[in-house]
Amino acid sequence: MQINFLLFPALTQLDLTGPYEVLVRIPGVNIDFVSTSMEPVVSDRGLTMLPTVTFENAQPCDLLVVPGGPGTDDTLIDPRWVEFTAHQGSQARFILGICTGSLLLGAAGLLLGRRAACHWQAREFLPAFGAIPDESRMCVDGNIFTSGGVTSGIDMAIRAVALMVDEDTARQIQLQIEYDPEPPFTGGTQRTSPEHIVKRCLDATRERHAIRTQAVAQASQALQI
Amino acid sequence: MQINFLLFPALTQLDLTGPYEVLVRIPGVNIDFVSTSMEPVVSDRGLTMLPTVTFENAQPCDLLVVPGGPGTDDTLIDPRWVEFTAHQGSQARFILGICTGSLLLGAAGLLLGRRAACHWQAREFLPAFGAIPDESRMCVDGNIFTSGGVTSGIDMAIRAVALMVDEDTARQIQLQIEYDPEPPFTGGTQRTSPEHIVKRCLDATRERHAIRTQAVAQASQALQI
Repeated sequence: MQINFLLFPALTQLDLTGPYEVLVRIPGVNIDFVSTSMEPVVSDRGLTMLPTVTFENAQPCDLLVVPGGPGTDDTLIDPRWVEFTAHQGSQARFILGICTGSLLLGAAGLLLGRRAACHWQAREFLPAFGAIPDESRMCVDGNIFTSGGVTSGIDMAIRAVALMVDEDTARQIQLQIEYDPEPPFTGGTQRTSPEHIVKRCLDATRERHAIRTQAVAQASQALQI
Repeated sequence: MQINFLLFPALTQLDLTGPYEVLVRIPGVNIDFVSTSMEPVVSDRGLTMLPTVTFENAQPCDLLVVPGGPGTDDTLIDPRWVEFTAHQGSQARFILGICTGSLLLGAAGLLLGRRAACHWQAREFLPAFGAIPDESRMCVDGNIFTSGGVTSGIDMAIRAVALMVDEDTARQIQLQIEYDPEPPFTGGTQRTSPEHIVKRCLDATRERHAIRTQAVAQASQALQI
């Protein structure tokens, strides 16, 4: 099984690593990190990673994984990323979109008429790409799995292994990475968090929201739906 | 606040990124990834990252973070890693050890008489370093936080933010990364997983267990407790 992860600048590193640590444990899997060049890629918060292949020499894949993060907004309006995602996504057996990664899937025309999840602060943008927003932590529509923000990629990847391989393999991986979460607080969703905490998150991301609004408008227009 | 993450070859990437995505959201924080040189570091499964500083120019830190993974076993018997961990750990206000990272803390003499958690498959090695094994997902003993395998570092880091900064900041981060886990299966611990799944994990890691047994014996002897 060949799995390709998109590796773009300013992605959120846990969006990538959550599913990575699950999927890389599938027996016989080969994983590549695909970028525009072989130059190091810096995450939104500063962790630097190396791609393994470029758009030019990436193999077709069984599973395409699209993380999110603020950098998504740049990919939405970059025809290289949109076209590569559309091309590989249309050929892959399965697609995983984590967090705002579903916006890039949308811009690539892969979510037309499909239900999709997204980070709670970006879910509102899905209809611009013809997608139906889904508030669940993981959303499965056909061969496209999408999830909410950041950490949700772990839950989703374990579920994807159960579906793509078998349940025992998924359970073994869950035990290997000791995924028996004990979040210290209730909350973790807009619905379950105290109102003043939701407000703090929204206040902290106003600038990003404005940038995203513009990028989505431009990408949506390019998609011509 | 200065936070130093140890970045050694063959670490488990989620051990590092789980706490990283939480801690990097503390306002005003500066994070470095410390290694023996500035050469790229490859994780146990192949993701390549770049250090930001070396042992020689690392700053003293408020918080030292020690991930785990198979590569821990090499650090245990490498005086450079043991001495750097001992030196920085003895000066830090707080220490976080994730997964088998607690073995390196042990080899550095930081766990003498302390309770500590560890990946369930390596917990048995803690007494060799004078530590008292703790089966909980997160263990706090004085200024040392240790956790179980891999994903437990996310829970622990959120709790550490609540303690080191304040509860609202921790809650805001939990909502930003949408940490409202829905593991697809019960299980995720040795106690709660089906017996045949536990056996699959143990069978898959026999070779690693033998290597670790040797490394711990050598490191424990060097510690002279």
